[in-house]
Amino acid sequence: MAENAAKKYNEIVTLGSIIHNPQMVQKLEKDGILKVNDLSEIEGRTTIIRSHGVGKEILDKLLEDNVEIVNTTCPYVSKTQEYTQLLGKEGYQVIILGDKNHPEVIALQSYSDGKTIVVKDAAELPKNKKYDKTGVISQTTRNIEDLQDLVKALLPRCKELRIMNTICSATTIRQEATLELAKNSDLMIVIGGRNSSNTKMLAKISAKFIKTYHIEVAEEIEKEWFNNVENIGITAGASTPDWIIVEVYNKIIEYLGNREQKVTNIEEIPGFKE
Amino acid sequence: MAENAAKKYNEIVTLGSIIHNPQMVQKLEKDGILKVNDLSEIEGRTTIIRSHGVGKEILDKLLEDNVEIVNTTCPYVSKTQEYTQLLGKEGYQVIILGDKNHPEVIALQSYSDGKTIVVKDAAELPKNKKYDKTGVISQTTRNIEDLQDLVKALLPRCKELRIMNTICSATTIRQEATLELAKNSDLMIVIGGRNSSNTKMLAKISAKFIKTYHIEVAEEIEKEWFNNVENIGITAGASTPDWIIVEVYNKIIEYLGNREQKVTNIEEIPGFKE
Repeated sequence: MAENAAKKYNEIVTLGSIIHNPQMVQKLEKDGILKVNDLSEIEGRTTIIRSHGVGKEILDKLLEDNVEIVNTTCPYVSKTQEYTQLLGKEGYQVIILGDKNHPEVIALQSYSDGKTIVVKDAAELPKNKKYDKTGVISQTTRNIEDLQDLVKALLPRCKELRIMNTICSATTIRQEATLELAKNSDLMIVIGGRNSSNTKMLAKISAKFIKTYHIEVAEEIEKEWFNNVENIGITAGASTPDWIIVEVYNKIIEYLGNREQKVTNIEEIPGFKE
Repeated sequence: MAENAAKKYNEIVTLGSIIHNPQMVQKLEKDGILKVNDLSEIEGRTTIIRSHGVGKEILDKLLEDNVEIVNTTCPYVSKTQEYTQLLGKEGYQVIILGDKNHPEVIALQSYSDGKTIVVKDAAELPKNKKYDKTGVISQTTRNIEDLQDLVKALLPRCKELRIMNTICSATTIRQEATLELAKNSDLMIVIGGRNSSNTKMLAKISAKFIKTYHIEVAEEIEKEWFNNVENIGITAGASTPDWIIVEVYNKIIEYLGNREQKVTNIEEIPGFKE
């Protein structure tokens, strides 16, 4: 969407990083899509709403200012915003499972009428507090176990508990695949932005089973990692562009001394799964 | 309520056992409150609705027939019926955690517009089935752990999960007190109807920790139970009348050879808690 918009509009910016992948953000800058961090920097230019969404008050301000908008908010994130709004309107105490510093969560909170509570896990819940009607929303990139733990802890304290399972199914599938891959590998390489929530989660899941490196680009790879290693697993975050994955694969192949097996396309990587 | 109603009305019946305590039901029969099992047996007499409630279609029929009603449905059970109706109306697949043969659960199911699913635990859930909007209701006398397990199992399968925590707080308090007592006793006596769901649950909780006897009346007690036993814990179901508890206590005192410690009132029992 961003690349198409760049062809259509001469002057175009994204409000915050469009995705949490610095290399992709750099590439888009070359296409003329600049990143601004604040409404005041937009100066009437067409504005791309990042995949993580923006707060309600920001969207309202953009509309009020008649700014041309290209909305690339992930559909899963939009649903999360809708649900937060619905629960707030219906008088639920909204509890968000997520990272309170993540743009998705910051934006999300603005959609509730009432005050929201953000916790990264069940242990962060206010102690001994009882709730009447409680709504639970999850940041789209959390894993289901954390949501299950939170709900288990809330259940005895709430008269009513309404949970919107807003975990992105693509995220869940990727997490499950990563878990399987990690179990069957001697080493795991997880590729993606160091600020990417879903990539960090993949690295965390993988590291439970096997030695895991979280990298952003091929240049970070060290030859020594592959000493005495037979099965190498590679996975990547939702926002990691294919070209970086190909570069990583080729770098590994190079270090393993099989230059002739290099690929030009992600689908050529042995065992590739979308 | 039943005893007062018996004074007011000459001809009075209960539709089903008013509570799950055979001795109490017998006592009420002496007061002139007879039990009938079917609408056809009412024959115009004032009718007591049992504590577990009755199905919507039965209540409608009684109203249609202009039968005088004394409604002793437990307020917790009434709430459960209200919630089931609400969830059904709002298009939720209602899942009831409970015993499908228990009158409370049988009645409950009639309050949903849609089809309900009754499971006694998470293992009974239909395998691999995914749900959209799912509402969960618990029989009032279940324990919170079973509800937590059910919710944990449902969460990955549901887009939305709305749980009405309809576990009766009196039941929860009694279960927690029983657990504590069982931990600190060498033997537990649980008193209450063998058909009483909440009494059976107390016995189950207690038996996890220590030798436990579930009895209905003092006559069932055997002297041998108390050989080499120092701390005896006594607990009773919600529907167990005080006089039976006093009889049980006095019988135990008798077997222990301390006749002078017999009591006439439940509050005189050492360590008595409501």
